[in-house]
Amino acid sequence: MINIVALDCMGGDYSPGAQVEGAVMAVREYKVAVILVGNEEQLRFHLERLKATDLAIPVRDASEVISNEEQPSSVVRRKKDASLVVAHQMVKDGEASAVITCGNTGALLAAGLFIIGRMPGVERPALAPMLPTHDGKGFLLLDAGASAEGKPEYLVQYAIMGYLYRQLVHGIPEPRIGLINVGSEPGKGNELYRQAYSLLQKAPVNFVGNIEGRDLLAGVCDVAVCDGFTGNIVLKCLEGSGSFFTQILREEMSASSRGLVGGAIASPALKNLRKRLDYSEYGGAPLLGLNGVSFKAHGSSNARAICQALKIAFDFSESGMVSQLNLLLAEQQRSSL
Amino acid sequence: MINIVALDCMGGDYSPGAQVEGAVMAVREYKVAVILVGNEEQLRFHLERLKATDLAIPVRDASEVISNEEQPSSVVRRKKDASLVVAHQMVKDGEASAVITCGNTGALLAAGLFIIGRMPGVERPALAPMLPTHDGKGFLLLDAGASAEGKPEYLVQYAIMGYLYRQLVHGIPEPRIGLINVGSEPGKGNELYRQAYSLLQKAPVNFVGNIEGRDLLAGVCDVAVCDGFTGNIVLKCLEGSGSFFTQILREEMSASSRGLVGGAIASPALKNLRKRLDYSEYGGAPLLGLNGVSFKAHGSSNARAICQALKIAFDFSESGMVSQLNLLLAEQQRSSL
Repeated sequence: MINIVALDCMGGDYSPGAQVEGAVMAVREYKVAVILVGNEEQLRFHLERLKATDLAIPVRDASEVISNEEQPSSVVRRKKDASLVVAHQMVKDGEASAVITCGNTGALLAAGLFIIGRMPGVERPALAPMLPTHDGKGFLLLDAGASAEGKPEYLVQYAIMGYLYRQLVHGIPEPRIGLINVGSEPGKGNELYRQAYSLLQKAPVNFVGNIEGRDLLAGVCDVAVCDGFTGNIVLKCLEGSGSFFTQILREEMSASSRGLVGGAIASPALKNLRKRLDYSEYGGAPLLGLNGVSFKAHGSSNARAICQALKIAFDFSESGMVSQLNLLLAEQQRSSL
Repeated sequence: MINIVALDCMGGDYSPGAQVEGAVMAVREYKVAVILVGNEEQLRFHLERLKATDLAIPVRDASEVISNEEQPSSVVRRKKDASLVVAHQMVKDGEASAVITCGNTGALLAAGLFIIGRMPGVERPALAPMLPTHDGKGFLLLDAGASAEGKPEYLVQYAIMGYLYRQLVHGIPEPRIGLINVGSEPGKGNELYRQAYSLLQKAPVNFVGNIEGRDLLAGVCDVAVCDGFTGNIVLKCLEGSGSFFTQILREEMSASSRGLVGGAIASPALKNLRKRLDYSEYGGAPLLGLNGVSFKAHGSSNARAICQALKIAFDFSESGMVSQLNLLLAEQQRSSL
């Protein structure tokens, strides 16, 4: 199968300039195969601006753009020539193996489900961002909001997908799978979580038990599993507290002249802090469980973040996760009978 | 009705010294009426140590202690003479109007339900801590984990209780009630949250709609309502990220000598930062919805935190929330018919 990444160039804060520049970087630095999808005239303008016409990066014209305000499910059906829709259609048709967008997450989910479709054995795809931990290794959170409703079986499928992803993409031999819960003891949580706990004990993964919110950032697991409602809340609380802390820290630093001097001298420390919290290096969040590789990059991605996303998506689609996932899901279904 | 706070002196990291000292402060500074519950010999020793025997603070002997490791529901039934159980029994019997403990939260919940009992019209009590916001005003989160299972009706009751609490205890004329959710638009979230949204629109409170996790700390609402599973996750994620940020900031500050100097000079700023995040001044989390006032103070409460908790519990039990709550709950039931 062909391995080429379809890059939706028309979504995100710095599109399409950052997208084209990131693609040029990824081709030059990592020999990633990429096809740019979007307004052809604009894309060619940026390729020339970057003196990259010699790379012969293919361009697929798409005349429409999906904005962040549009209703995802209907727009994906309506705007057949939107860059996001065209890029997904290319994966569906085998013209590309992976798709990346910086645009509307809801539209990405809708296009993933309606156009690419689910992998056999996966009932719900899961959005799986990496979040920072104290030891710098990070953890994969899934589902971070692809589905609002949860079932115990979904959570087991998330665990298996997360397990494989961290093995294949991050090279962790036995990723530790934790179940996000309100207490560490078995039997904690609501009905959904108690049932998921029992199923996870029998699942073909390295299940390490319940994980409380306060331990997530300490790095006690490599994959944290929960329903999409809970995962989205976790993601947004951690994001929200990140900006909260940096904001009030900056205020306190400049509140007094003494603080101002201290702040100026301490600024390398602050810069390092931000770097440790910046998960753009992870290249965005994969949408796991589709019949193809799909990545959501951050809306504010710069060229470097796009380049990393392209590298990861390219490597990931070469890893053969789909076939390995099928084997594990079959094993899990046998063990739960 | 008598207004006196039964203080469980035997739970928490610094018990019973900090408890007795906090009580002495509260009596001297705020004329709070308090009765100390716990090992009488130890309590009298501390009263003498603090030269406070002239205050004639009453002491109720209790021979047993509930540890953090014990199973809450069974221990409350078994250890009839545990300080926590005795303090709750005093509220039940009308000998005290409020109870405060720094001990086991699960045991507090169990004792509240089994001994004091629920207020008529409240199906589930809710644990309601205050959390910090950027504007320094904070928000009340409920339910933070009293119940693991959620129903739309519970969430409406939480909203009414939180609304009244912030009016009566914090003097906010029209507290803004937000529903924690995965998006701000109506119709977001799972079935539970969509139903709760509809009910809240008709409830006799100032409902401001869905609130995303990332906006909570910005201070967009005075009360944030959610089911106890979600609330516990929110609470622990915010707590966890608080210690995460201060820890890595400290590391970065001391990583380089330049950072070290900056850190030393910037330390007043760091101290202010910690102060803004320290919600011990709120005096702990009330357990709302019981037939009496019940407060969980932090396990690591010092004397000052205990004193604040006593003041708030005392004022709160004078505020007449029980009768006002009954009126609002009846109004809500009429409007939802």
